[in-house]
Amino acid sequence: MEHAKPLPSYLVQRYQGWKATTYEQNQPWYRHLGAQGQHPRAMIISCCDSRVHVTAIFGADQGEFFIHRNIANLVPPFAPDGDYHGTSAAVEYAVGALKVAHLIVLGHSQCGGVQGCIDMCEGQAPHLEAKDSFVGRWMSMLKPRYEKVAGIENAEDKARSFEKQAVLVSLENLLTFPFVQERVEAGDLSLHGLWHNIGEGGLECFNPETEEFDPL
Amino acid sequence: MEHAKPLPSYLVQRYQGWKATTYEQNQPWYRHLGAQGQHPRAMIISCCDSRVHVTAIFGADQGEFFIHRNIANLVPPFAPDGDYHGTSAAVEYAVGALKVAHLIVLGHSQCGGVQGCIDMCEGQAPHLEAKDSFVGRWMSMLKPRYEKVAGIENAEDKARSFEKQAVLVSLENLLTFPFVQERVEAGDLSLHGLWHNIGEGGLECFNPETEEFDPL
Amino acid sequence: MEHAKPLPSYLVQRYQGWKATTYEQNQPWYRHLGAQGQHPRAMIISCCDSRVHVTAIFGADQGEFFIHRNIANLVPPFAPDGDYHGTSAAVEYAVGALKVAHLIVLGHSQCGGVQGCIDMCEGQAPHLEAKDSFVGRWMSMLKPRYEKVAGIENAEDKARSFEKQAVLVSLENLLTFPFVQERVEAGDLSLHGLWHNIGEGGLECFNPETEEFDPL
Amino acid sequence: MEHAKPLPSYLVQRYQGWKATTYEQNQPWYRHLGAQGQHPRAMIISCCDSRVHVTAIFGADQGEFFIHRNIANLVPPFAPDGDYHGTSAAVEYAVGALKVAHLIVLGHSQCGGVQGCIDMCEGQAPHLEAKDSFVGRWMSMLKPRYEKVAGIENAEDKARSFEKQAVLVSLENLLTFPFVQERVEAGDLSLHGLWHNIGEGGLECFNPETEEFDPL
Repeated sequence: MEHAKPLPSYLVQRYQGWKATTYEQNQPWYRHLGAQGQHPRAMIISCCDSRVHVTAIFGADQGEFFIHRNIANLVPPFAPDGDYHGTSAAVEYAVGALKVAHLIVLGHSQCGGVQGCIDMCEGQAPHLEAKDSFVGRWMSMLKPRYEKVAGIENAEDKARSFEKQAVLVSLENLLTFPFVQERVEAGDLSLHGLWHNIGEGGLECFNPETEEFDPL
Repeated sequence: MEHAKPLPSYLVQRYQGWKATTYEQNQPWYRHLGAQGQHPRAMIISCCDSRVHVTAIFGADQGEFFIHRNIANLVPPFAPDGDYHGTSAAVEYAVGALKVAHLIVLGHSQCGGVQGCIDMCEGQAPHLEAKDSFVGRWMSMLKPRYEKVAGIENAEDKARSFEKQAVLVSLENLLTFPFVQERVEAGDLSLHGLWHNIGEGGLECFNPETEEFDPL
Repeated sequence: MEHAKPLPSYLVQRYQGWKATTYEQNQPWYRHLGAQGQHPRAMIISCCDSRVHVTAIFGADQGEFFIHRNIANLVPPFAPDGDYHGTSAAVEYAVGALKVAHLIVLGHSQCGGVQGCIDMCEGQAPHLEAKDSFVGRWMSMLKPRYEKVAGIENAEDKARSFEKQAVLVSLENLLTFPFVQERVEAGDLSLHGLWHNIGEGGLECFNPETEEFDPL
Repeated sequence: MEHAKPLPSYLVQRYQGWKATTYEQNQPWYRHLGAQGQHPRAMIISCCDSRVHVTAIFGADQGEFFIHRNIANLVPPFAPDGDYHGTSAAVEYAVGALKVAHLIVLGHSQCGGVQGCIDMCEGQAPHLEAKDSFVGRWMSMLKPRYEKVAGIENAEDKARSFEKQAVLVSLENLLTFPFVQERVEAGDLSLHGLWHNIGEGGLECFNPETEEFDPL
């Protein structure tokens, strides 16, 4: 790896500041985490988007949440075909090894991945349609839901609806994993769908009775 | 999705606390993030492990890092085969759409995924060898490197060495993506390999000259 | 006390969230509690175990229960020897100063203290038998009851039976306090024995007629 | 135990309400807690006072804090004399078995135990001076500190100062336990002193540099 570079100095400085303050003041807790292993209560599947910090929203400390982040917080369907499946591996580890109690899918407003899928469905994103676009392939998981939002005229409303569809697709795909299904039915695992409004700081939770996302 | 449940009430309470304090105090910044889009400076590829909060270590605010988290912070090699590739999609989005300046791979101590790969290589993890284990398939990416650490007797030393190999594999695989290679060669993108010691709060950076990880 | 440290920042953040929401919304009640003193209806003697929140189970608000929590919810026998007796002091304060109407002893499943006593009785916990083990001394209060459960083969059944014996020992020891005995006989105080199943959310109440714990 | 009574029906009703709602919605988490054991991050030593709910203040869920509650949140000095020491047993279990990272002593305003000690020191509480008063014996732990507050004229100010002395006595006594001292010196355990104002919702943290309690 002759291409690797030293860390930019501003990040080195920030790290050293963290080490001298937060780490120093909480050394026993970090030691505990290092020595005693992790026992997170929940897995959170969230977007890579730099604006969504789930640990901040929930006042979470190190050790609380096992967090997988990918484009548009999507979970592909169960497909034990021997290929690399990063999201499926994370779900398997959380449920099988860590025995988390909750699987929480957290969508959000202004999601670039979801907007890209809308653009594809509306024929305005040939670069994502290209066979070698990983983002296009990844977001195609969401395409079959486009018909549910196609009639919405306001672009922002349409995007928000589709962002929520992305949460629902993931929840439904989670249930295609036999080990998820079994634990949900046994009462050992629960699924939760959330959507976060970045600008307004809002959080909405999917309500299966009304099939709507209700503000908390 | 009739299976979805309401959010546990202690998380609702914590969210409402965040909304009333951190959000209220920083509303203009959240509004800015919502309206102006994200402009992260770097993509960080980190582990799902609940004990590793990269935003804490680098004192990062919302908007700074595009973060992908998967098991053992692994990047598979470039494989434009039309399948779902969550990690590759995240890298493509970060480099192609967001034009981040840095790709940082952050490994860590006590990594359960890496330990599982050691166990596989030593014939002690038949459940991971099973054809339908997503974790086993995912971690097999790292197997070819086992020979580099096989001779290390101390189990902790071996694990740390292999955790660092996981960082190097990811950096090397990143360079198999043509769009990464091009931008690196053009001087528009740099790669960085880090390893974090959870209990001691340490951070080490790969040095291509010595081929060692140096403490910061 | 030069050793004291600042509070971890995530707890500061959570506290500030509580202050800005729950406290703000209920300020008159907290003011009332501060100014008017406490008038709890019951004293609850529960375990320190982090998994047992008696206020949650009984939907209790601030001000309702005077709560003593120690290892395995044990009450030692009356012993006015001039030494420090934290549990006895708490009982005296509840009964004499606060004039609570109920003394409730709440045991629970998976109790580490009770399991430690089983291990001692079976010769498998030399560290607890050590003269300087406070846990060993404390749990020895329960040892004389071991004969009641010694014949139970299933380890979980044995532990549950012994956990219930811990509740009964405490109830019996409460009656060795003259001020408890007097008020019970006068009809001014009642004793209650409960056992809580953490995983199943169950609650069982001791029935003196059948000498069994009945599910509620 | 022929004296035990059935649980008051309003508590039965509340329990059944909790079971049908909170438990039902969070069954997987309770199952997890029952099956996987407790891994609390901190031990909190708090008062039995019904007005102080530390879990509320910190938005804590089941499993987070190992909580000992006694009169006036006091820790007696290390005394391995073979007697029953409930507080010492709880500290030993938290530090030795659970390996918690933090010991937090939480005092509070309007503490009846602390006021009783002031009354004793001022010759106005003969009932607490009686040899058979457990509360009197227990609170005598704090007596040597009276000289630090004796000169304060305002009764409320004096009480608050003495409540904070109770926190400091406990922190100092914690350090007389060899297993606490060792772990603190090794960086594996930290001590924190807090004082809570019930009516105002305030929280203050002891600052060893200024030797004052600073509002958070």
